[in-house]
Amino acid sequence: MDNKVAVYRKEHFNAAHRLTNPLWDDEKNNAVFGKCNNPNYHGHNYELIVKLSGVPDPQTGFVIDLKLLSDLIQYNVVDKFDHKNLNEDCAEFRNLNPTAENIAIVIYNILREKISSALSLQVRLYETERNFVEYPAN
Amino acid sequence: MDNKVAVYRKEHFNAAHRLTNPLWDDEKNNAVFGKCNNPNYHGHNYELIVKLSGVPDPQTGFVIDLKLLSDLIQYNVVDKFDHKNLNEDCAEFRNLNPTAENIAIVIYNILREKISSALSLQVRLYETERNFVEYPAN
Amino acid sequence: MDNKVAVYRKEHFNAAHRLTNPLWDDEKNNAVFGKCNNPNYHGHNYELIVKLSGVPDPQTGFVIDLKLLSDLIQYNVVDKFDHKNLNEDCAEFRNLNPTAENIAIVIYNILREKISSALSLQVRLYETERNFVEYPAN
Amino acid sequence: MDNKVAVYRKEHFNAAHRLTNPLWDDEKNNAVFGKCNNPNYHGHNYELIVKLSGVPDPQTGFVIDLKLLSDLIQYNVVDKFDHKNLNEDCAEFRNLNPTAENIAIVIYNILREKISSALSLQVRLYETERNFVEYPAN
Amino acid sequence: MDNKVAVYRKEHFNAAHRLTNPLWDDEKNNAVFGKCNNPNYHGHNYELIVKLSGVPDPQTGFVIDLKLLSDLIQYNVVDKFDHKNLNEDCAEFRNLNPTAENIAIVIYNILREKISSALSLQVRLYETERNFVEYPAN
Amino acid sequence: MDNKVAVYRKEHFNAAHRLTNPLWDDEKNNAVFGKCNNPNYHGHNYELIVKLSGVPDPQTGFVIDLKLLSDLIQYNVVDKFDHKNLNEDCAEFRNLNPTAENIAIVIYNILREKISSALSLQVRLYETERNFVEYPAN
Repeated sequence: MDNKVAVYRKEHFNAAHRLTNPLWDDEKNNAVFGKCNNPNYHGHNYELIVKLSGVPDPQTGFVIDLKLLSDLIQYNVVDKFDHKNLNEDCAEFRNLNPTAENIAIVIYNILREKISSALSLQVRLYETERNFVEYPAN
Repeated sequence: MDNKVAVYRKEHFNAAHRLTNPLWDDEKNNAVFGKCNNPNYHGHNYELIVKLSGVPDPQTGFVIDLKLLSDLIQYNVVDKFDHKNLNEDCAEFRNLNPTAENIAIVIYNILREKISSALSLQVRLYETERNFVEYPAN
Repeated sequence: MDNKVAVYRKEHFNAAHRLTNPLWDDEKNNAVFGKCNNPNYHGHNYELIVKLSGVPDPQTGFVIDLKLLSDLIQYNVVDKFDHKNLNEDCAEFRNLNPTAENIAIVIYNILREKISSALSLQVRLYETERNFVEYPAN
Repeated sequence: MDNKVAVYRKEHFNAAHRLTNPLWDDEKNNAVFGKCNNPNYHGHNYELIVKLSGVPDPQTGFVIDLKLLSDLIQYNVVDKFDHKNLNEDCAEFRNLNPTAENIAIVIYNILREKISSALSLQVRLYETERNFVEYPAN
Repeated sequence: MDNKVAVYRKEHFNAAHRLTNPLWDDEKNNAVFGKCNNPNYHGHNYELIVKLSGVPDPQTGFVIDLKLLSDLIQYNVVDKFDHKNLNEDCAEFRNLNPTAENIAIVIYNILREKISSALSLQVRLYETERNFVEYPAN
Repeated sequence: MDNKVAVYRKEHFNAAHRLTNPLWDDEKNNAVFGKCNNPNYHGHNYELIVKLSGVPDPQTGFVIDLKLLSDLIQYNVVDKFDHKNLNEDCAEFRNLNPTAENIAIVIYNILREKISSALSLQVRLYETERNFVEYPAN
């Protein structure tokens, strides 16, 4: 065992989306995505938990200052997706179905570029209290 | 003090909405409703708590069978609003701004007609964990 | 407006119960109580919130010392019902159907005798996160 | 029944405090306040829920813009108490024991001056998940 | 790192149980299991979280449709254990002590047969908010 | 896959602390730790989750009796830190900055000595609902 500690920061955003595959006709989209395929959209309060693992800095006792991590998530993720229509307003989902799985991968990729490679990264995204995802899987 | 007991049932639905006043221009709507005015909508996981107060039936010990209350909310409220765009898909909000306050009043009026007048009714609606409303106010 | 403050203390207990009316036959009990009528019992984690309202003591700033209230609930309610079968082990429910409504009334009556009449009392009981009751109703 | 709706906004702050009555000696303070009397302080994550009741504005559908209410609580309450020692850093508790009851009354009085008298006000303060208070009591 | 995403679905059931080892006498059972050994049973609201990890289908963006996973848990686990006495009503615990650990293993084994071996499986079971288990351990 | 099950027990304590590096001057401490550097302290409700993984005992079905684990955490951790000033009252933090990371490592080291080496150990510590840490990291 090394001395790595994981730190977690929870943020949230509210967004509209619909699930659809543009290569399929309406009948198939309805069969697969059901009411999530509503062409007028529905929405969620997304809860996002970002996990970083690393060795604490001996001078501060911090893996990372969680205020800085919060600001970084706010600026790069929340400002991009909060109170938006993921399908219509967000370039990331122009050609990608905004399932919870895909939203988590997109957020991971955004944050991975902004965070030191000395820290490992994982994101958990709650679409509802009962449905949530994590990327990458342990 | 009489013998009234209050019973509560919690349900939820996910919906898209936008806040807007059609009598105002875009500038005023943006000034008042900010990012909630996004013309492409955003969305929420709405948590709904329905409260009924009355004297328990001496034969059952129930104010109301909560399974029946759950079914009644499901049929009359959740099926109507879940995975919908409140502004576009729901006649109740064709001419009514879907603020949490107005959604709560609409739900109260729907349920009030379906529930015995011997029971008093109150609805609480969570738009997010930090923003919620109650109608009628105590 | 007077200067009354309400204070709340949350406790919990785990118990088995079944819902049944001994004056009815099995068919009627099943029709009314459904799977809650299982003769072998089922169970719950009950969450109990006790509310007392009164004027804070100017010397302590307390309506009541919540540690004392916690001990009082523990001794008079939790020790009586925790890890018990309400129907079989508890005299209070020998002739009373242990619905959430009736359990709340029983707990109110137990506590009412132990707490100064200068303080008003209300109990809220969660049978599940989605089903809960309050006595007396506001 | 009038048309009043209650709206709620939840905020939080983290603070240190100790409970003590300067007119009492150490023995009495220890007997009454126990480990809450630690002269080196302890602390809490306080969760604050502010409730306002009024008639929604027909043009906005809002009792009050919850973003404005959030800013008002932030500026007048959270900035004052967050990451502070209530006894040492806050004039409000120089001569007032910072029990949950008294903190709630102080917050009520601060907010009451800032909010239109057309709206009724109530504050709920969680000291822990299991201990909380409300002022004024219903 | 591969492209695996973990998806989670939360369900619940309410059940009665007692902890006991039929090879031991009452004295030993009481010494080891304490009030959990009550011969008349007690009960819990069990919260179950099922985790599946796999690569999302590029056509749907789903690891698995969570509605299908929910139905599968409902049919194979919840319908079997909800509102039951685990010791008396459930063949799985005829010869197996229904500790949280053993219930989690039983649920894992039930679900493992029903879910594609391309997906890895883990179950978490909350007996109370403060006591919970996970199988298999990471 | 072996037969290991993870069991979790949640406890809590309330404490005051400040973040500071005694080798730095006030200006640097303020720049790095911000309002967490308040010399009069602030405080938190710490939620602690202890995870142990091992093979259940075939006679009990327990990895460990969670009542025993709860008592062990209470005696060795909660009694030491609850209602304390971590910087002033606790020898563990005389020369160690009480960040969440360091508190988690200290608690891990305390518990590791008290728990059989056949069981693997991990601790999670919530400083607030939105900021938490885990040691060792997975």
